Amino acid sequence: MKEKENIVFGVHPVIEAIKSGKEIEKVYIQQDIQGQGITELRNAIKQAKVPVSHVPVFKLNKYTKGNHQGVVAVISPIITQDAEETITKIFDAGKVPLILMLDRVTDVRNFGAITRTAECMGVNAIIIPKRESAQINEDAVKTSSGAIYRIPICKVENLTDALFMLKSSGIQVVSCTEKTNKHIGELDLTVPTAIIMGSEENGIANQLLKNSNYSGKIPMAGEIASLNVSVAVGMVLYEVAKQRKI
Amino acid sequence: MKEKENIVFGVHPVIEAIKSGKEIEKVYIQQDIQGQGITELRNAIKQAKVPVSHVPVFKLNKYTKGNHQGVVAVISPIITQDAEETITKIFDAGKVPLILMLDRVTDVRNFGAITRTAECMGVNAIIIPKRESAQINEDAVKTSSGAIYRIPICKVENLTDALFMLKSSGIQVVSCTEKTNKHIGELDLTVPTAIIMGSEENGIANQLLKNSNYSGKIPMAGEIASLNVSVAVGMVLYEVAKQRKI
Repeated sequence: MKEKENIVFGVHPVIEAIKSGKEIEKVYIQQDIQGQGITELRNAIKQAKVPVSHVPVFKLNKYTKGNHQGVVAVISPIITQDAEETITKIFDAGKVPLILMLDRVTDVRNFGAITRTAECMGVNAIIIPKRESAQINEDAVKTSSGAIYRIPICKVENLTDALFMLKSSGIQVVSCTEKTNKHIGELDLTVPTAIIMGSEENGIANQLLKNSNYSGKIPMAGEIASLNVSVAVGMVLYEVAKQRKI
Repeated sequence: MKEKENIVFGVHPVIEAIKSGKEIEKVYIQQDIQGQGITELRNAIKQAKVPVSHVPVFKLNKYTKGNHQGVVAVISPIITQDAEETITKIFDAGKVPLILMLDRVTDVRNFGAITRTAECMGVNAIIIPKRESAQINEDAVKTSSGAIYRIPICKVENLTDALFMLKSSGIQVVSCTEKTNKHIGELDLTVPTAIIMGSEENGIANQLLKNSNYSGKIPMAGEIASLNVSVAVGMVLYEVAKQRKI
């Protein structure tokens, strides 16, 4: 939310950014704003399927002191990858794929922390949905210690479709969830594997759970019995690292 | 740093708080302030060995809008425990002790996150040094999801003395460090164990490393090769949980 954030503002500059194919995390539009430019903007947003939020003007003022005309776009600091191409590249490089799929992990710091851990533990790619994901912004880059630049991040329209794509590529899909009796350590994670992690609030969507090949839980004691998602990711990736003897 | 923070302000109220034996995280004194009350305050601080910082006045103004007279004390939200008594209680309860010792983990959020993970993974107590530790304040409580209230936290004058106390109580001391060839998973963690974790910046002090019974590292790949300390704690505690079949 600082001035240095990678942003574009003003109606026409934002339309131009969208049309030029820049990867845009989100467009913020002032509530109740009208006008011909705004209509054109909405069409461009719709066509390019860019995420959009309608916000009060003070939120826009936080992004810039410039004349934003009620419109601010946050540009992604990275170019996200195509999931299918990325998987092919991993296989072509002779690696045993280790993929992380994040279902509705919307907290920016958690996303950054997960990316950092993933990079340290040999994850080959992270798959996230286009909607209901954390914004990939400067805070995410910072929390990731720069790992966001070093690991392919794939944005997909639909996680269930991505799950079927993974399975048909010969990658087993494992949901990390407490809704199972099996411990994550009882599964064979030495083969090509994609691990699904859900958010602390929502867990993993049923559609993903029931189409996974396996489910595994993390053993826990204590009364709170709720791990932070980035810590849980660390535990699962530690299990993989042990099994694969990295 | 919000108004609701558990604080006492004003020269005499802070002196009274110290003399009444309240557990004080830190006293903040305005730089260059003088006066008879301040001399009395300094004596009380010295006698009770309360941590103190000299800060510019704007920092004090952030804590309260009241007439702080150049003095603000942050009161601990918990009563910390005596390490030796706590260890005895754990043995008396028939438990196999699992202790976490944090060497200079000064980041409040990391401390909170670690406490949360520790509670979830069956840690019996956390030992921290009186100086060079994170402040136990409302942010720590929040990041810990309340775990700070559920797990004994012991503050000690000196971690090396605490390490010898643990060893003489029959608890093996394990340093988690990359300065070893052994993986943490190769150690037997089913016996009474204390695990030392260092900060990301400083690692574990040599004095602690060389007096530990064992050292173990976390297997890593990637280029960044630096895990967040709360994630690393999660991995080690996962290894313990697996070995102890919790």
